[in-house]
Amino acid sequence: MNIILFRAGEVQQNSVELTDYRAKHLIRILKAEPGKSYRVGILDGPMGVGKVVSMEKKHPFRVVMELELPEPPQQMAEIDLLLALPRPIMLRRIFSQLTSLGVGRIYLLGANRVEKSFWEAKLLHQEHYLPHLIAGLEQGVDTLLPRISIHRRFRPFIEDYLPTLAGDYGHLLCGHPHGEVALEQAVTSRSGRILLAVGPEGGWVDFEIEKMVEQGFCCCSMGTRILRVDTAAIAFHARVSALRQAICEKA
Amino acid sequence: MNIILFRAGEVQQNSVELTDYRAKHLIRILKAEPGKSYRVGILDGPMGVGKVVSMEKKHPFRVVMELELPEPPQQMAEIDLLLALPRPIMLRRIFSQLTSLGVGRIYLLGANRVEKSFWEAKLLHQEHYLPHLIAGLEQGVDTLLPRISIHRRFRPFIEDYLPTLAGDYGHLLCGHPHGEVALEQAVTSRSGRILLAVGPEGGWVDFEIEKMVEQGFCCCSMGTRILRVDTAAIAFHARVSALRQAICEKA
Repeated sequence: MNIILFRAGEVQQNSVELTDYRAKHLIRILKAEPGKSYRVGILDGPMGVGKVVSMEKKHPFRVVMELELPEPPQQMAEIDLLLALPRPIMLRRIFSQLTSLGVGRIYLLGANRVEKSFWEAKLLHQEHYLPHLIAGLEQGVDTLLPRISIHRRFRPFIEDYLPTLAGDYGHLLCGHPHGEVALEQAVTSRSGRILLAVGPEGGWVDFEIEKMVEQGFCCCSMGTRILRVDTAAIAFHARVSALRQAICEKA
Repeated sequence: MNIILFRAGEVQQNSVELTDYRAKHLIRILKAEPGKSYRVGILDGPMGVGKVVSMEKKHPFRVVMELELPEPPQQMAEIDLLLALPRPIMLRRIFSQLTSLGVGRIYLLGANRVEKSFWEAKLLHQEHYLPHLIAGLEQGVDTLLPRISIHRRFRPFIEDYLPTLAGDYGHLLCGHPHGEVALEQAVTSRSGRILLAVGPEGGWVDFEIEKMVEQGFCCCSMGTRILRVDTAAIAFHARVSALRQAICEKA
């Protein structure tokens, strides 16, 4: 935990009292003592420093901190993810790992090869996925929660909803082992947000690829290797980040 | 499983008999039938096609295949990983995910912030780590096993052993949140192999950074976010792959 995060409602007069896993982490792992300060932030709010003013070192753990929060929240990450709904165990990992890397929005989408049973997952409810997003922010040192939205039907999302968003994006990129364009050639602009589409295990079907291409997606390849969805999501994000960064450094 | 892999000793007169998880996977997931063909390969050997000639669809599963293996093994991946020994659960994931992305060698190294107990892990023995490497090859469609070596003491590795290897490498890169050089500026050459150093949870200590820099490592940053070791290893590999690919496409 590289930053201790609170909900806005937990803070009263620049002070916060922790009694849960955060108190335990401060005491057991970070060896908190009165007077010591730690990086803190408010979810979807500012960041700063929290100083321990009183504490209970034994079970039940308790830490009271005084806060100074002069730093505005970071800007929304410029990369969003359009993800064919993966199995829950994989989605959990993607939520926390992508959040640690920095992602603005995650659209969870139905697709031909998404197993129907995945839609029953508890993890699709906010109270179940929020802890994984927060874990990602605590790791990556950020306060801005990614926006999650769920779109069970592929066609209405791609044909009706996506066009209303497309103006935000400088690049719509679909990763595909047989993509005709190398990713390195597809990332050319440093303006606009970037939407990365990652398919289900087994890949998008041809119809889905066609529909995405119709809406302006560039189907691009990251080499011939076939990657698991969780590996692909991180690798795609990282490759695009590096290429965009390289363009910005040259400009 | 995107390729079915065998040990050389399992093949007799261009035929192989499978009775383990591979037979079950062929029957249950890939719906094998006599006459159907699948992508196959021999560990550290050639790749090609295996045709099902006979099978037992029920427990105990059994599949006999005739093999044609005209494709030589792929070249060794040009990226190697120098990894401060992480906790076993993380190492397991790194073994399979990095192997699927393509890695030539993985050096597991001691470092100040590596917990002593990690050295007791069963996973450091070949019979325990090999299945995770093979899972990565089965995912990424490759036959070439990464070479794993274990170096418990930091200084002899960096001061004595590394200089004997350094001639192989065009780049020695150490990922560090406070690295002074952006990774995009560090990857400039398309010749030679690339060694990526990924530190332990909590990072390398200053002494270790100094020693690595003395041996020619460039300390570079992938942004200000702090990543978990497994995320960092994939993201670092992916970023460097993209930058190297971009250089090759321009040339």
